[in-house]
Amino acid sequence: MKKRIGIGIIGLGTVGSGVVKLLGENASLIEQRLGVPLEIVKACDLDPGKVRRAGLDGALIEGKASGVTDDPAVDIVVELIGGVDEAHSLIARALEMGKCVVTANKALLAEKGRELFALSSKSRGKILFEASVGGGVPIIKVIREGLVANRLSSILGIVNGTCNFIMSRMTMEGSTFRSALNEAKKRGFAEADPSLDIEGVDSSHKLVILASLATGKWVDLKSVYVEGIEEITAKDILYAGELDYVIKLLAIAKYGEAGLEVRVHPTLIPRKHPLSAVSGVYNAVYVHGDYTGDIMICGAGAGQDPTASAVVSDLVDTGRALIGSRSPQPIAVSVEDSNRIIPMEDVQTRYYFRFSCIDRPGVIAQITTILGEEGISLASILQKERRKGGVVPVVMMTHMARERNVRRALAEIDGLGSVRAGTMVVRVEDEEDR
Amino acid sequence: MKKRIGIGIIGLGTVGSGVVKLLGENASLIEQRLGVPLEIVKACDLDPGKVRRAGLDGALIEGKASGVTDDPAVDIVVELIGGVDEAHSLIARALEMGKCVVTANKALLAEKGRELFALSSKSRGKILFEASVGGGVPIIKVIREGLVANRLSSILGIVNGTCNFIMSRMTMEGSTFRSALNEAKKRGFAEADPSLDIEGVDSSHKLVILASLATGKWVDLKSVYVEGIEEITAKDILYAGELDYVIKLLAIAKYGEAGLEVRVHPTLIPRKHPLSAVSGVYNAVYVHGDYTGDIMICGAGAGQDPTASAVVSDLVDTGRALIGSRSPQPIAVSVEDSNRIIPMEDVQTRYYFRFSCIDRPGVIAQITTILGEEGISLASILQKERRKGGVVPVVMMTHMARERNVRRALAEIDGLGSVRAGTMVVRVEDEEDR
Repeated sequence: MKKRIGIGIIGLGTVGSGVVKLLGENASLIEQRLGVPLEIVKACDLDPGKVRRAGLDGALIEGKASGVTDDPAVDIVVELIGGVDEAHSLIARALEMGKCVVTANKALLAEKGRELFALSSKSRGKILFEASVGGGVPIIKVIREGLVANRLSSILGIVNGTCNFIMSRMTMEGSTFRSALNEAKKRGFAEADPSLDIEGVDSSHKLVILASLATGKWVDLKSVYVEGIEEITAKDILYAGELDYVIKLLAIAKYGEAGLEVRVHPTLIPRKHPLSAVSGVYNAVYVHGDYTGDIMICGAGAGQDPTASAVVSDLVDTGRALIGSRSPQPIAVSVEDSNRIIPMEDVQTRYYFRFSCIDRPGVIAQITTILGEEGISLASILQKERRKGGVVPVVMMTHMARERNVRRALAEIDGLGSVRAGTMVVRVEDEEDR
Repeated sequence: MKKRIGIGIIGLGTVGSGVVKLLGENASLIEQRLGVPLEIVKACDLDPGKVRRAGLDGALIEGKASGVTDDPAVDIVVELIGGVDEAHSLIARALEMGKCVVTANKALLAEKGRELFALSSKSRGKILFEASVGGGVPIIKVIREGLVANRLSSILGIVNGTCNFIMSRMTMEGSTFRSALNEAKKRGFAEADPSLDIEGVDSSHKLVILASLATGKWVDLKSVYVEGIEEITAKDILYAGELDYVIKLLAIAKYGEAGLEVRVHPTLIPRKHPLSAVSGVYNAVYVHGDYTGDIMICGAGAGQDPTASAVVSDLVDTGRALIGSRSPQPIAVSVEDSNRIIPMEDVQTRYYFRFSCIDRPGVIAQITTILGEEGISLASILQKERRKGGVVPVVMMTHMARERNVRRALAEIDGLGSVRAGTMVVRVEDEEDR
């Protein structure tokens, strides 16, 4: 039996130095729970000063990543450099050597997961990635292990703290998108270039991981429909509120006989839905299992300490397997088999429309006639302002409708002389419609 | 490597037959995730008809529990008979034979956990018990594994669906305790004799399990302070609401340098606290880890299907270990070592008091003087009704105070001629006071 588990860390940025701090501060606690210590035996960063500043002994510093992956004392390689290509090749190298790998790199998994999972399934080395979704919230463990007995039919996730902060701020303070984004930057909740977050790309990476685990078949990133939050205005949030809804950026996977829907977009959810109370940088995942029913787990979705907690939970799980001289649990995701993806045009959901109409008689009749011809029926209409002959917002919420019909109807409506083009469309997630 | 995992089920009541149903319906899914099938090879119930009605082949029926535990084809014994003594002896028998055991029996664990964990630590056989707390919600896995890198300083749990249904009903409909309890019985959410639930005993069993896992030292059931919900009136819920609080039955563990507090009692929590939105029969646990921060997980806390889901998740975890010819993860709870328990009298928290005062000048001054002499300072006073010379409710919320001082002050106040004895006391859990 192993007397210690040797850890090699590549990348000593925010998360990497958090892992070093955690392994130091809670060393005795972890040893008590695992049975043996987790010991950092090698570390590497492009800037060797970072290794030293993380508090590691200079003797542990390696100049090259391969010095970490190849060291026989390293049982688990922790990849925390981010990015795709270099991270990919170093993880592949470690897996080929039969080493276990722990990573927080969701972009890498979303883009190269198929290759990495395939490699991992042929190797003694396995890849673990709890920190890739939801920061310190053990979402992946809950889905892979806690709900292992369940067929999962739906996952709704708030998995991007930057967007959730912005949407919460717009909801609670009535801020514009721009001022909420600036506030997020000021508080360190948004990067200088926030586009990966606000355009929904980061959420789509995480959705690929969650949907692959839930369905047991690898989900291609390009099959995910993605819309960001930039177009949402303070007015939309206000109108949604009057209808008793809030707007969140959701990552949605729905899985049934017809296939798999995977989409990321701003979404109206009823104010009484548990996800609507998840505000600020918090993350949450709301999962439906055929036996458990609905389960929600939420907490801090990012940050040095929570992310380090997730990385170390993977180290402990891996360590537990290694002290028994066996591999950690394989990932039950087939990389050959694919899900039947339901194209976005075939998706059915409810819709919120905000039309910009010229305030004159007959406009609403024109709009509702076109909607009716496409089989789209209305749940409510909200017309708050009047400005004779001027442009006013008209809000409509539909019952269940098909995306294809909605697009067709809107193309026609946006061509009306009495409606300004660029109707705002936000999809709705409402359990009552199931 | 094992080609299948043999399951022996003892007790084919609601949960047992749910496990049979789940193992049948989701068999291929589970085999795909685990790698080998989980196969029921023996089953036993006092009423053999129940085994047959659960859909099991008559050939699997055993007349005695020992026929299940002792069968060499049985790798995992599932104990679902409930009760303490018989369940204890059959689990002990299985562990002594080196078999693994899965149970949902919280009363047994709370009362005999020390003995069973000790046995389990000396045996190849381990005991798993995800279904003992929170039904289908994988609370135990989250605490044991997901948060393994964290020092857990606080656990707040809504772990009894019957009580949460009653409190939610009283809050939302303004019902009395009795009528809410009757409604719970009518809907099958409360037993004919609901005393174990409403007196807080069931919650205290679950708290023993959670607090032992969190601290790594066995917590004795008798060290838990327990109060039920019977005394809570619709009025208290109303007054709490006016102060922006809701009342829930919470199981609370707080762990720090000074020791461990373990208590179950009705508790005021701020309306904006995530636990306040957990209503009906839902369960939730809100945990603070030093690295993750606050994590909440919630879902259906009881019922046949959710509980079966939890039992089967333990079967899969155990099966995964067994196919690698090793024992499942030992429980990192020392049965020799004990926590320093903070006696209830030394606990500090905030308090809600509802005094029944004779409405005459000077009464509030008398009360606040006594409170002041005990060092108890007030956050708010609510006096809604006036009835000159009659008895009226006066509500006060304190800042942090010590239980001992509160008890002493109340004994004195209840002795005043102008105050009716039996002041209502509800403790408050408010993060702002941390």
